[in-house]
Amino acid sequence: MNTTMTKTTSPPLPLSPSPMPDVQGAADARNVAINKVGVKGIRYPITLKQAGGGDQHTIATINLYVSLPKHKKGTHMSRLLEILNKHHRAMTSAMIVPLLREVRAKLDAADAHIEMEFPYFIEKAAPVTGAKGLMDYVCTFEGTSNSVDDFIMGVRAPATSLCPCSKDISERGAHNQRCAITARVRTKGMLWIEELVKIMESAASAPVYAVLKRPDEKYVTEQAFDNPKFVEDIIRDLAVALNKEDRVLWYSIESENFESIHNHNAYAMIEHDKREMQKPEASSQ
Amino acid sequence: MNTTMTKTTSPPLPLSPSPMPDVQGAADARNVAINKVGVKGIRYPITLKQAGGGDQHTIATINLYVSLPKHKKGTHMSRLLEILNKHHRAMTSAMIVPLLREVRAKLDAADAHIEMEFPYFIEKAAPVTGAKGLMDYVCTFEGTSNSVDDFIMGVRAPATSLCPCSKDISERGAHNQRCAITARVRTKGMLWIEELVKIMESAASAPVYAVLKRPDEKYVTEQAFDNPKFVEDIIRDLAVALNKEDRVLWYSIESENFESIHNHNAYAMIEHDKREMQKPEASSQ
Amino acid sequence: MNTTMTKTTSPPLPLSPSPMPDVQGAADARNVAINKVGVKGIRYPITLKQAGGGDQHTIATINLYVSLPKHKKGTHMSRLLEILNKHHRAMTSAMIVPLLREVRAKLDAADAHIEMEFPYFIEKAAPVTGAKGLMDYVCTFEGTSNSVDDFIMGVRAPATSLCPCSKDISERGAHNQRCAITARVRTKGMLWIEELVKIMESAASAPVYAVLKRPDEKYVTEQAFDNPKFVEDIIRDLAVALNKEDRVLWYSIESENFESIHNHNAYAMIEHDKREMQKPEASSQ
Amino acid sequence: MNTTMTKTTSPPLPLSPSPMPDVQGAADARNVAINKVGVKGIRYPITLKQAGGGDQHTIATINLYVSLPKHKKGTHMSRLLEILNKHHRAMTSAMIVPLLREVRAKLDAADAHIEMEFPYFIEKAAPVTGAKGLMDYVCTFEGTSNSVDDFIMGVRAPATSLCPCSKDISERGAHNQRCAITARVRTKGMLWIEELVKIMESAASAPVYAVLKRPDEKYVTEQAFDNPKFVEDIIRDLAVALNKEDRVLWYSIESENFESIHNHNAYAMIEHDKREMQKPEASSQ
Repeated sequence: MNTTMTKTTSPPLPLSPSPMPDVQGAADARNVAINKVGVKGIRYPITLKQAGGGDQHTIATINLYVSLPKHKKGTHMSRLLEILNKHHRAMTSAMIVPLLREVRAKLDAADAHIEMEFPYFIEKAAPVTGAKGLMDYVCTFEGTSNSVDDFIMGVRAPATSLCPCSKDISERGAHNQRCAITARVRTKGMLWIEELVKIMESAASAPVYAVLKRPDEKYVTEQAFDNPKFVEDIIRDLAVALNKEDRVLWYSIESENFESIHNHNAYAMIEHDKREMQKPEASSQ
Repeated sequence: MNTTMTKTTSPPLPLSPSPMPDVQGAADARNVAINKVGVKGIRYPITLKQAGGGDQHTIATINLYVSLPKHKKGTHMSRLLEILNKHHRAMTSAMIVPLLREVRAKLDAADAHIEMEFPYFIEKAAPVTGAKGLMDYVCTFEGTSNSVDDFIMGVRAPATSLCPCSKDISERGAHNQRCAITARVRTKGMLWIEELVKIMESAASAPVYAVLKRPDEKYVTEQAFDNPKFVEDIIRDLAVALNKEDRVLWYSIESENFESIHNHNAYAMIEHDKREMQKPEASSQ
Repeated sequence: MNTTMTKTTSPPLPLSPSPMPDVQGAADARNVAINKVGVKGIRYPITLKQAGGGDQHTIATINLYVSLPKHKKGTHMSRLLEILNKHHRAMTSAMIVPLLREVRAKLDAADAHIEMEFPYFIEKAAPVTGAKGLMDYVCTFEGTSNSVDDFIMGVRAPATSLCPCSKDISERGAHNQRCAITARVRTKGMLWIEELVKIMESAASAPVYAVLKRPDEKYVTEQAFDNPKFVEDIIRDLAVALNKEDRVLWYSIESENFESIHNHNAYAMIEHDKREMQKPEASSQ
Repeated sequence: MNTTMTKTTSPPLPLSPSPMPDVQGAADARNVAINKVGVKGIRYPITLKQAGGGDQHTIATINLYVSLPKHKKGTHMSRLLEILNKHHRAMTSAMIVPLLREVRAKLDAADAHIEMEFPYFIEKAAPVTGAKGLMDYVCTFEGTSNSVDDFIMGVRAPATSLCPCSKDISERGAHNQRCAITARVRTKGMLWIEELVKIMESAASAPVYAVLKRPDEKYVTEQAFDNPKFVEDIIRDLAVALNKEDRVLWYSIESENFESIHNHNAYAMIEHDKREMQKPEASSQ
């Protein structure tokens, strides 16, 4: 029906009464399955439950994918948008797996994947004056649903790191800097973002704050000086803390320190699966 | 009092009863005034009024500055945070100038500047099926307060551009691509983000959408093909539209087209002050 | 020796004749091994061999890490910089594994990792007029050395994608857009960046170019219109091509299409290990 | 000639002997001049002269624009690429204005603009051990040619800033952090990037380095502690230094300090035109 086409600027034709061809629904002969196909970089407002009660409105950047078997030509991406549109007003971590199961059903897919990144705000009081301000933490939800369901929560927390070597070898002062600590965790039971942030900030030389008055600035300067930590120390102290937290089953943690004396960053990373640990210990008995 | 210091890890000392020195408040002898000094890159939740009624919760990245005269050593940055903290729950465009005046008063500054960037969501219906989805537009507020007050609202709207040359010289098809149109305007009277977006999208070959079903995709494909526009055309058609909108006094508009046949972008920019136009015309009479 | 410190501004003290303490070299009692620790975000000029002969000067962003066993407190990051400094003038893909082995030896580490990203330029002639221009491709080298050595080369190539559905259902035109195709490969034997780029560009609706004159623009417009491909098709056709290339043992490929009718992107990904394929086939005999 | 089109996949047609229409060269009736139109985001290898002799190969991201008068429909963007292609092997600051004049001539334009950003590497010796490493500085060239010619060179230099307030009020230590100092200058006579970097780094609490051994780390830690500076101090000390440098006619300088105790940055900016200063002084005699 498309054999004669004009290039003149004409108004859109009336919709044909015959159904449009479903190009994506055709068969495919290349014999190649696709791990992930879908939509990337969607920005959406979402509403999250807070640890202390109440809702928080924030904005997420979302990727949503399904797998595609060898014999299918394409997926129906607009359905992914429709499902998102339906759920974004109540996007808690508990909603991720049900949403992915709905994706699998509506798109007839064996696997569904979601990746979300969003800022999350926590009110924080300065350590001496108690002056309050909002701190933003970049958080992530990663979910997969196939024969089993998987969910990873991530938090990036800024903090202060103060170099033990610099403190030890110098007559006065010690170089320090902002660092970005990231933790991604698999849990059993609910772990609030607020709880994970507290664990993470305790691993640094000192937390950072939204508002600090002079007495607060004195306090955090001395706190950092009294807690010198290499990037290795931050990440190890965080590992020790997460090892003690029974709700955490697996973690991948890293810290990137924006060295004040260099133009490059110091970095350390640990990934650990407690479930794997337990198996060899059991077998060694 | 700081003459003997130990490097041992001691608990923070009790706060001295004598007031801490105000280092920022000291005098400065270098004879150099500072145009802008303050805080940059603060992320904050804000609440905006919508054109159709109701509030919208979003997240802004904010810079807030004052000027500093020659004789003053420093500004008090924590006060900037305190003022932000007080107002962020009701941050409409009408609040910008009052907030800047408060900044000037609280910091005893001749000038105050704010720059805010935030995503703003508008529900958009697909052109044929009416399927609804949220489109995000990156918006900006820029304000200055000194002897006069100034406010600029900005919107970046994605759209489709289809190349007239490619269409004209090719036997079939025409290269097209997403473009990012940006408009920054000074106005008299209220111009809603929703109104500016509508004007901007009309200047492109076609708007883009959050959700499109097949009949919609056919419609926008043909709409773009029937409205071929160079980056020059988009920006000129937008200039013509803003020239007709009496509430707009000044504009700076640009379009960046992410060319589908090149690895670089096509770009065009026009800045125009209607108030300057009128003066020479008046004087030529 | 650090017990008395003054806060007055004094000149740096003469270096002590006694050796400084090696804080990083101390023992650690936390019983936590670190997967990766090192330097991140180093920008360095590097020199690469070109397929057609001659050298190419470019700039890499480099991360360089080692593993750290449980009993060691810290790594010596400055040694990583010294090793980089020694080798950057001749940084071919063949140099990656020897450099990592040197890192392991100098830092007494069981594992060493490198990640490099750099633009690589290839001169490309327009398809009809032959007008020449430089195209830039973002490339990556990823290397690991421990009990075995591993090397992955990556290339990101921009290209044109034209939507088969849009073409099929529309009376005229078809939406198209720039896409970014990425391939990461493990190989046996040498595969030049130039060779991988050619394979990747063949999988798209059309390649993109640095310079196109009008006859070229007509050519690529029609070429894309004659080769409509979903993001699924691009990635599958690339998989088929890499399956045929015997030097490629493993690949992870993706395409992100910057949809001209949407504000989000279409995405597809396939990861495939040919070596795993062969084992089950062998065992099934 | 385009009235009948088939959608079948046919080979590209032979080029028509009749010349293709020059769509960009047509007349325009909208009566709107365009300030800037051209190509954006081109990545290109360039070769620069170094202060100490010899050439440096680096990679620039380039925007190249012309103005377009009311009566012309479009510009010929491929010509911009051709001119770039011809000159990139010898792109010194002295080449910018001649290149822009060539652009104006080849595109018959009243104005031409270029913006270039590139990393520039300087070998730097550690302050005590003399250990050498390459530091990268992000530099910019901005040029305009119309009735007069204009050229601005910019450099961004990382450095260390140490807070005077934190040092003064704390019993031990002082918060410090990396900062990014930026200077853009108009000059008479040649000012090397290397010279400007030296002036900029002297304005901070301490420079940063590519490689530091322990004696160097002690030195820079103490140097920063002995030179506490607010962001206001850094920018004022840089202003004082540039006021003394006779080759600098105009400057816009800023510093962004990545505060180690906050999640936001401290920022200060000064713009100053020495030429404007001299006029009122002359008239006051």
